[in-house]
Amino acid sequence: MNDVRTERRVRGGGGAARRAERTAVSMDTAKFITRNIPNFEILNEEALEIIEWNADTVLEEIGVNFVENPAALQLWREAGADVRGERVHIPRGLARELCKTAPSHFTQHARNPERNVVIGGKGLVLAPVYGPPFVRDNEGGRRYATMEDFRNFVKLGYMSKWLHHSGGTVCEPTDVAVNKRHLDMLLAHMTLSDKPYMGSVTEPVRAEDSVTMSKILFGEDFVEQNTVMTSLININSPLTFDSTMMGALEVYAKHNQAAIISPFIVGGAMAPVTVAGTLTQVLAEVLAGVAYSQLIRKGAPVIFGAFVTSIDMNSGAPTFGTPEAAHITYGAGQLARRMGLPYRSGGAFCGSKLPDAQAAYETANSLNMALLAGVNFMLHACGWLEGGLVSSYEKFVLDADQLGTLHHLAKGVSMDDNGQAMDAIREVGPGGHYLGCQHTQANFKSAFWRTDVLDYKPYETWEEEGARDSATLANQRVKKLLRDFQAPTLDPGIAEALESYVAQRKASEPDAFG
Amino acid sequence: MNDVRTERRVRGGGGAARRAERTAVSMDTAKFITRNIPNFEILNEEALEIIEWNADTVLEEIGVNFVENPAALQLWREAGADVRGERVHIPRGLARELCKTAPSHFTQHARNPERNVVIGGKGLVLAPVYGPPFVRDNEGGRRYATMEDFRNFVKLGYMSKWLHHSGGTVCEPTDVAVNKRHLDMLLAHMTLSDKPYMGSVTEPVRAEDSVTMSKILFGEDFVEQNTVMTSLININSPLTFDSTMMGALEVYAKHNQAAIISPFIVGGAMAPVTVAGTLTQVLAEVLAGVAYSQLIRKGAPVIFGAFVTSIDMNSGAPTFGTPEAAHITYGAGQLARRMGLPYRSGGAFCGSKLPDAQAAYETANSLNMALLAGVNFMLHACGWLEGGLVSSYEKFVLDADQLGTLHHLAKGVSMDDNGQAMDAIREVGPGGHYLGCQHTQANFKSAFWRTDVLDYKPYETWEEEGARDSATLANQRVKKLLRDFQAPTLDPGIAEALESYVAQRKASEPDAFG
Repeated sequence: MNDVRTERRVRGGGGAARRAERTAVSMDTAKFITRNIPNFEILNEEALEIIEWNADTVLEEIGVNFVENPAALQLWREAGADVRGERVHIPRGLARELCKTAPSHFTQHARNPERNVVIGGKGLVLAPVYGPPFVRDNEGGRRYATMEDFRNFVKLGYMSKWLHHSGGTVCEPTDVAVNKRHLDMLLAHMTLSDKPYMGSVTEPVRAEDSVTMSKILFGEDFVEQNTVMTSLININSPLTFDSTMMGALEVYAKHNQAAIISPFIVGGAMAPVTVAGTLTQVLAEVLAGVAYSQLIRKGAPVIFGAFVTSIDMNSGAPTFGTPEAAHITYGAGQLARRMGLPYRSGGAFCGSKLPDAQAAYETANSLNMALLAGVNFMLHACGWLEGGLVSSYEKFVLDADQLGTLHHLAKGVSMDDNGQAMDAIREVGPGGHYLGCQHTQANFKSAFWRTDVLDYKPYETWEEEGARDSATLANQRVKKLLRDFQAPTLDPGIAEALESYVAQRKASEPDAFG
Repeated sequence: MNDVRTERRVRGGGGAARRAERTAVSMDTAKFITRNIPNFEILNEEALEIIEWNADTVLEEIGVNFVENPAALQLWREAGADVRGERVHIPRGLARELCKTAPSHFTQHARNPERNVVIGGKGLVLAPVYGPPFVRDNEGGRRYATMEDFRNFVKLGYMSKWLHHSGGTVCEPTDVAVNKRHLDMLLAHMTLSDKPYMGSVTEPVRAEDSVTMSKILFGEDFVEQNTVMTSLININSPLTFDSTMMGALEVYAKHNQAAIISPFIVGGAMAPVTVAGTLTQVLAEVLAGVAYSQLIRKGAPVIFGAFVTSIDMNSGAPTFGTPEAAHITYGAGQLARRMGLPYRSGGAFCGSKLPDAQAAYETANSLNMALLAGVNFMLHACGWLEGGLVSSYEKFVLDADQLGTLHHLAKGVSMDDNGQAMDAIREVGPGGHYLGCQHTQANFKSAFWRTDVLDYKPYETWEEEGARDSATLANQRVKKLLRDFQAPTLDPGIAEALESYVAQRKASEPDAFG
């Protein structure tokens, strides 16, 4: 792994300094994952062909709605679709043909070029939770998220070694006006982190603000020539493309900025209760959405998105980490690869109210399937709690730690002479012990993934230290990270220009809530 | 799934009865898993061939020790091995050739024929935790296990829908003499459950007792003609076969009873610190052990075992649910399939002291990899805590619940007309809702896996009910299960004969501890 070392220096000498060094917070960031392992392919060729045929049937026979968007309907008409009212019937094969101009992968630039990510191919880029109106921590419990929480989560993301991306709405800062909070959120990502980030999608004008602020940060020409944002465009499943999301997509596509085109599906509610049925609808929706992005601008970077989960038929609650969600995630990955598109899915999903065993089972189920499903961009990779209603401080650092396991899993198995270790087996022999042997000494630092938060201590030590559970250990890590945070350097002129733009835009209109 | 329905009847009528029915403990047992999904193959053909070549090099050049076992050395000599002292050098290809008489799969019979399991092929049989000297529950904390705990875990296993096997030493009953506890343990499995079980391996004479008691339970002829026990024969890695374990193996093989021949490896301690090196040693050990079982009796049923995990190089503690363990588990599965042998690996592994988030991350990582690795027999599938030192009541039921997800994952994706759900997509159309549609109504009961212990309630309800975490919910489920337990019926004559054999054997020698 090509870790970028930015470890914080600890001043002073002697025992105290050594102790400080041992407990210093690491600020390494790992390079995004490049898979050296196969994908898990749950569907055979026949199943894939059936789903692809059925998706085209859906597009042609049932069609999709582009709501309150006459310009979109006109584009579809010109492309050869049969438009009746707001319903767009897309002849078999047309959507797939239009999708061909979308790139198979693209680079999203960060203001620190060492943090650039390539999205697509064998890559996997990890970004934090997106969207929760609440936060939770051990002391404060569950409460509405504020801008201070937002900044805290951006800081935690910046300091998380296995997180490659700063994300977008890491929580909803509910104490800032709805029409202005995107400005504060962007400012936080741009100043408190140097990792890539996402733009606002809640109104087309906010997408324009995102582009403008990015131009201040990166330079006008740079943004026109490069992708510096990947933003989340949800499809209103089933089969509906609303004008707000499409408006934001139009802004981003025109500026060559990337969009995740993503059905948002709770199976049994927004899609059929079966896996194959859901995959059919997901594919139809992505085909229509990606095709539309290419009608706006040929070659605009887009991602095949699939937010999919199942439902508890007793309560109607969405459920996470379930086998049905895994089937869909595996299958959608195969469909995305056959389209030659980057694939977004997965996340640290759970339904639990607390960062407890339930949360972790569901999350680990979800993270593992996403790695093996060939996901290229994983939003919600850490911090997600309670079905996405809550950004959890403790779960953020617990999940972020687990993301390290994905990096190591993806490395695959080394088969060189050192990996084969025949000399070690010869040296130790029957009844011997490997701990002291030369091969172990030479490899032990890098051989195994190591946690930054879990407990491996002897039982007696653990008990003497207060018998702390994972949530308690995580709480202590959160506090340490936030205490140790140091913002990455930024040209003061750029910082000032960003602040001044935010101030001017905020002054230009009254606060709106809701 | 071909569930065997043995649901407890609830007496009486009216509202109370209906409430009782709703909260009644289900005593269904699911049929063992038959995979309808592919295995995950992490190693390519070249890597597999290198490992197989190296394993043969280990056997020929380094050799394996059969300690204090002159009869074994004689068998090896006769088979063509080069025996020097206790070291057996096995010429390239010989071990693999000898392994060919081992069956690719076998049926382990239960006293209730509906609980019979087939071990091998596309099957996956799940058995509970094995070996911990301690137990833990929410109220009592961590303490030495007793025979009462043992019986409780057998009861919980019997009542766990997704568990196909009663296991063996579900905890060590430390209040019973070491030389007699196997008798009480076998009696508990035979009387408190009707699922298949494991025999004792701690001394050859205890293996003989296991065979004798099985003959009382099943009938003498039946046991000679059928496999009714699968027992755990650990290899003393690296490359050492001790006389106690081999003695037990000899007893079981002679009686045509099954053995798991299993290297017990903490990588970096009992095997090289690299994945390919560990796989080489595992394969060499299994080749030698399985070949030896076939020297005892051609055709004796055996399982390719691999207990593998990594180590924390700071503390020397074994670590669980790690990416390196996953690599080894995937790779060993491929090696087992190439030998045409059933494969044992995986489990609800964790290093955590509590059934908290750490325990669940580590466990879910382990369970998922085991399913995809093609494991046929999974010991430790529920209840394992603290690196195997502790059998946890709460984690037992939490893990056992998660085993349901493996059953559903393994079913794969249905591609029939109902699965394709085109009529549902047509019926609902753009902007509609699937909850009420005919297809959803027809499928919702079986479409999704459903938990018996996790929380999906609305936040407010959950809070009113005490904001219970997973461990608390699990504790309540444990109590309910033990309260509701009813032993499966057993011929009183057989029960009496078993008790009388146990009493007579106990009276025949003084207690020994340690």
